Order: sequence, then structure tokens, then C-alpha cells
Amino acid sequence: MKILNEGVTAPKGFSAADTAAGIKYQGRTDMAMVYSEADCNVAGTYTTNVVKAAPVIWDRDVVVKGGSARAIVVNSGIANACTGKEGMDICKVTADAAAEALDIKPEQVLIGSTGVIGMQIKAERITAGTKDLATKLEKSFEASERAAKAIMTTDTKHKMIAAEIELSGVKATIGAMTKGSGMIHPNMCTMLCYITTDAAISNEMLQKALSASIVDSYNMISVDGDTSTNDTCLILANGLAGNKLIDSENDDYKTFCEALDYINKELAKQMAADGEGASHLYEVIVNGAKTKDEAVTLSKSVVSSSLCKAAIYGKDANCGRFMCALGYAGVDFDPDMVDIYFESDAGSVLVVSKGAAPAFDEEIALKVLSADAVTVRCEMNAGNASATAWGCDLTYDYVKINADYRS
Amino acid sequence: MKILNEGVTAPKGFSAADTAAGIKYQGRTDMAMVYSEADCNVAGTYTTNVVKAAPVIWDRDVVVKGGSARAIVVNSGIANACTGKEGMDICKVTADAAAEALDIKPEQVLIGSTGVIGMQIKAERITAGTKDLATKLEKSFEASERAAKAIMTTDTKHKMIAAEIELSGVKATIGAMTKGSGMIHPNMCTMLCYITTDAAISNEMLQKALSASIVDSYNMISVDGDTSTNDTCLILANGLAGNKLIDSENDDYKTFCEALDYINKELAKQMAADGEGASHLYEVIVNGAKTKDEAVTLSKSVVSSSLCKAAIYGKDANCGRFMCALGYAGVDFDPDMVDIYFESDAGSVLVVSKGAAPAFDEEIALKVLSADAVTVRCEMNAGNASATAWGCDLTYDYVKINADYRS
Repeated sequence: MKILNEGVTAPKGFSAADTAAGIKYQGRTDMAMVYSEADCNVAGTYTTNVVKAAPVIWDRDVVVKGGSARAIVVNSGIANACTGKEGMDICKVTADAAAEALDIKPEQVLIGSTGVIGMQIKAERITAGTKDLATKLEKSFEASERAAKAIMTTDTKHKMIAAEIELSGVKATIGAMTKGSGMIHPNMCTMLCYITTDAAISNEMLQKALSASIVDSYNMISVDGDTSTNDTCLILANGLAGNKLIDSENDDYKTFCEALDYINKELAKQMAADGEGASHLYEVIVNGAKTKDEAVTLSKSVVSSSLCKAAIYGKDANCGRFMCALGYAGVDFDPDMVDIYFESDAGSVLVVSKGAAPAFDEEIALKVLSADAVTVRCEMNAGNASATAWGCDLTYDYVKINADYRS
Repeated sequence: MKILNEGVTAPKGFSAADTAAGIKYQGRTDMAMVYSEADCNVAGTYTTNVVKAAPVIWDRDVVVKGGSARAIVVNSGIANACTGKEGMDICKVTADAAAEALDIKPEQVLIGSTGVIGMQIKAERITAGTKDLATKLEKSFEASERAAKAIMTTDTKHKMIAAEIELSGVKATIGAMTKGSGMIHPNMCTMLCYITTDAAISNEMLQKALSASIVDSYNMISVDGDTSTNDTCLILANGLAGNKLIDSENDDYKTFCEALDYINKELAKQMAADGEGASHLYEVIVNGAKTKDEAVTLSKSVVSSSLCKAAIYGKDANCGRFMCALGYAGVDFDPDMVDIYFESDAGSVLVVSKGAAPAFDEEIALKVLSADAVTVRCEMNAGNASATAWGCDLTYDYVKINADYRS
């Protein structure tokens, strides 16, 4: 696997575009399109929130019907969630506009929206934007980058990555972009993530690979514990690489999954590090749990704790809060067996030993906690299961961003 | 029932004291004692956190053994949690000092601690403080108030209340004090809460009344989603009112429970309103849910959401976040049936109608959200069950308080 500094247009046959459609934001781009010149197999995972945004319902229908996808149209600014029938109509209008402009079928168009919940998107703006996007499609690093920027909301950085793999000697590529900064506590999926590949892979294997890949990536991050109404992760595979179709769990499938897992984990970490107001990437590793499920539950409890997140922000080695967050996770364990380390590029310091706080050097702890990326490693000493979760610290800026998001 | 502006010394035979023992804080009181001149029946509820502070283990043992209690000794500053065998020894030392000074048995002494986790309490300070408390016991409003102040940590207000009831014509009194501001997400109990009564009531009925009462009071509040290691709620009944012993679910029991429920709900709301950094009491009412459990889950999901709490702080009628938080609660419902109102002393405004956002007057919404106490009322229109949860908004000050709590 070779990691590329590229995005969604890296695989053969994919192009992208961006535009400023005035959906809600002024003075910036707010729509993106991804287009494949050949029909794509497609797989998706979506939010588990009972309240699902209109585009989530639209995409699920397209994927379930097993249709061949050709394009994705995404807008930022308005989430098209809690918008009733009018919201579903907007999806239809968007798909119709894209279909006409690109000479494809409406049911080949996937749709994404992100932004404020409860506002309606103006039909004339999204149709004009969609038509404009169709004229601007480009296959380039710059086009990938501009598309990744257009789908940002409170994100401070665009997020994209690509990887090159060999499938039985044939070169294939996977590209991806994602956005997400607040309302991040994905469950079964993430905020918006769009993955493209020119690998030939069946719908069934594509879904299997994607569903497995999100478990240890997007499902392990949390910025604020709020599972969004719009979480969507889609992967499109157009087969233009020319490899032998992957239709079983063979070596090519494993190679493909390995690259997909790498991409999703990297993007998940980028999202956590760019969490609203974040000043630290906050990683929690749980080792020695009795089962994988317990390791996941423990790590997510610690990564989601407001008090632990505030301590990371304050560079405060307040070790008791981390024991406390393990303790209320809902997993039974012996506190007297637990060791906890704070770790970063600057070193490692043992802050809980057999459940109690040993004397430790506060200066070294401060140095460790001053790094951009901080790891809290919890050794449960109860079994062999591990999990890693990612989040960010809780800062003044998180409150500032979210106390007046709509204005 | 008559509500009294009194505290733990209101019932017959109870006195209280405070002192500055230098446990950790300087220049303020940090220990309190509550004493009964007669033996008390006692009941308790405790944190469900797997990591339990030493005093929680001590109190549970005293209550389980069915012993008759005579005194409670509480310190603030250090939580005596994650302190291993040394922490249990401190409980024994404290109980011994109180027993000697008060001429009672060590197993008649209940203990409470609140503050930083992972630090050890110095034995000589807590024994000196305990002895000093025993010499200062007083039965007065002022003594109740000073005791309630001594157990505060990040609380900005002390919290106490009392009620007078008639049990088959005999006057009885219940008094209480509580503390709690951060690490508040009680489960089976609350932070520290001490209730006294001169009613004659059996151990069994006392535990039944307490266990039932916390369900709709302390278990329905959340400041930050962090369930503490030290949550303890104790009730002592010395029988000095002279009423006929309550040993069944008779009318006197119901009168007693009604007053106890009132007291616990009031103190729970006071704790939520005084949540770390809080500028609003934030109440969430869920009506029309299918079951009580679902109503509880939905209301706690909305009251705990960081994004909803930040919107309350910003007086931002960002209604979609409230739908979103209902949606990820883990309860199945039809979003198209849901109505949501923002309410306060300043009025009521419908912000979600049948799952979508109607046009509403932003100025009225701003007025409603500018009140000190704000209610979000969610009408599920799916059944007849209701629940009410209390929390507070998420503010800069919450982050400030918790980014550097130890220093």
C-alpha cells in the first residue's frame, strides 16, 4: 500500500467540482460534486439516529435498490434534517438537476447535506448550484481539495487521503474525503465521508468491506457525544482499474480492506483532531480488557467524558477522573488491577498504579500533556482485548462555537 | 406538609457543626458533623460507579449491618477515592476519633468525602478536625447552614431544606443538606446528600422510601454526564417525634414519602441549577412517551446533550439539536409526531411541529430563553408516560473550572 497526497479524484474515471451556491453561507463555496464516467457499485452506512435527514433516506434507498451510482452532490450550510416532505422533495429536485446536466438517471445520484437542522434549502439555489457543478468537473489534486473544502462546516481543515494498492498485480486506487467537527459521536457511521475507487468489486463485498471498516475507525471517535442526523459514509467503485472482480474474501479483498481501513482510521483521527474548538487530539487506548466489546465501551467512556476532556485541555494530570470514567462505563472490573499512563511524543508517565495514584513527576506529566496529540493508555490487566478511541479536548472555543452556531 | 427554611438540625435531637481542618482548602471550613442524641435507623443509596470511594464502602457496610447510626462526619477537598487500603484506614481513624469524642461506637459513625480523586487525606488533620467538630455541635439554623457550607466544593450555593409533616396527628420533621456541582450524573443516587428525621420509621420502610424517592429526583439530574465515585445519599431517623412506628405502607408512610420526594426533588433542582459554570437551570419534560423508561431515557438524552446545553447557554433556539438528541437516545419513535416547546416565565414558543421546524418568532424565543430557568417540553404523541430531567447549560466557566480543578 502506498499512501498518496490525493483525494476523491485519484482513482481512474473520477472527477470533482465545487461551487458557491449561496445555500446559506456567504463568501465561500458550499456545494461539491463527485462524478464517475462509468457506472459504480456502491455501499453505504448511515446514522443510527431515529431522526434521519432527507439525504440519508434518499441514499439508503439508492444503495438498497442496488442501483449503479454515477454522482454524489453535497451541500454544506443546511443539513436538510427535520424538514418533512419538503426536504425529500429537495433531494428529488437535486437528483433531477444532476441527472439532466450529466445525462444520467436520477436514481444514479447520491446526495449529502450538512449544516443547520430544521431549515429548508431553497430549490432554485440547489438546482442552479448542481448545474454549475456539472460544468466544472475536473480530475486533479486541486479539484479534490476544493470539493473537500466545499463540504466543511465548522471544520478548520479539509480532510482527504488516497492510497494505491496492487490487486493480483493490477494497480488500483482508493480516494476519500470527509468532513466532521461537531455533533460527532458516530454510531454505525460518521458524518459525511465519500470514498471512491477504481477497483472492480461486487456490491456485496463492497458493503462488507465498508461495514467492517467503520467499526474501528468512525465508530471510535467522539467530539461531543451527539450522534448526528446526517451521518453518511458512501463508497463508489467503478472498476476502471481493470483488476479481476473481487467477489469473495480472497487475497485481493484483504489488500483492499487493509487500504480502506487505513484510510478510514486516518480520516477518523483527522476529524477527532479537528473537533470543534479542539486544541489536542485525545487518544484513549484500553488494553487487557476481558472482551473487545468491553474494551470499546471503556475506551469510549473515557474519550467522551467532559471532565477528562477538560483535564486534557488544561494539561492537568487529574488521574482520578480517568479512573472515574472507566468506572461508570457499565463494565465490571477490579479497580485495584488498573494502571493508567499519559503518553505523547514527549514521553510516558504512570499516573495510576493498581488503582491508586502513585507519586509522579508533575513536570514530566505537564510536558507529556503539552503535546498536540495525547494518549491515555489504560491497562485493565484482566484479559487480552484492546480498543482505541479518538476524541479531542473540551475548550472555551467548543462552547463559543456552539452557543451561537446559527448566527 | 409545611416547607421550612431549615436544614439537618430541624428534626428533634439532631445537631450539627463545622470546622476548618485544613484537609486541602485554605481559609475556609472543610468538615461538617451531624449528630443525633438518640440511635437512628438508617438507609442509604450509593454510586453505581465500579470505582467506589472508601467512605462509600464504609457507609454501605454500616447500613447493610443494620446498625444504629449516631453521627455523620464529612470532609470536602479530597474525595478519598482511588486511595487503596490507606483510604479505608482513614475511614477507620475518623470513625474511631468521632466515637471517642461522642462516646458512641465506631460502627455508629457514617463518613462522607468529596473533592479531588487520587489524593490521600492526612490522618492527623481529619482526627483533629473530627474532635473539634464534636465540641462545636449546635442545634440551630446557623449550625445547619454552616454544615451545608463546609461540604461544598465547586458549589456556589449551599443547599438545604426541611419540611414538617403530621403522622396520625403527631408532628414530625425532615431536614436535609446536599452538595454537588460537577461530576454530576447520579445513577441510583447523587453526590453527597444527608437527610435527618425525627419520624419513627423502620429500617426497611426507610430504605424503601429513600430508594423510591431518588428515582425521580437525583437520578434525573446531569451536569456533565460523569457519574462520581463518591455519590452517597443517607437518611437517619431517630424516632424522637414520638409517632407510631411506620412499619408498613400505611397513610403515615405515604405522608412521609410525599415530603421526602418534595425535599429530594427540590435539592436535585438546586444542584442542577448550581452545576459547574451554570447560568441557567435547564429542565426537559418529555410527555406522551410509550413507557416511563422511554420517557426517562429521552429526557436524559436531551438534558445531557452538549450541543443542546450550549444552545441554552447561547439563548439560541436551535431546535434541530433537540430533535437530534431525542433521536439518538436509543428509543424508537416516529419523528413526524413530535412537537417541541421552549418555555419559561417569559412565555412558550412552539419550535418543532410534527417533526419539522415551523416559522416562529425569534424575538419571543430569545425572551423565553433569557430566563434563569428554561424548560424544553417534548410532546412525543405516542403514549401516556412522562418524565422530567434537570441539568444546566454548558458555559465557558464549566471549561474554566474543570481545565484546572486541582490547582
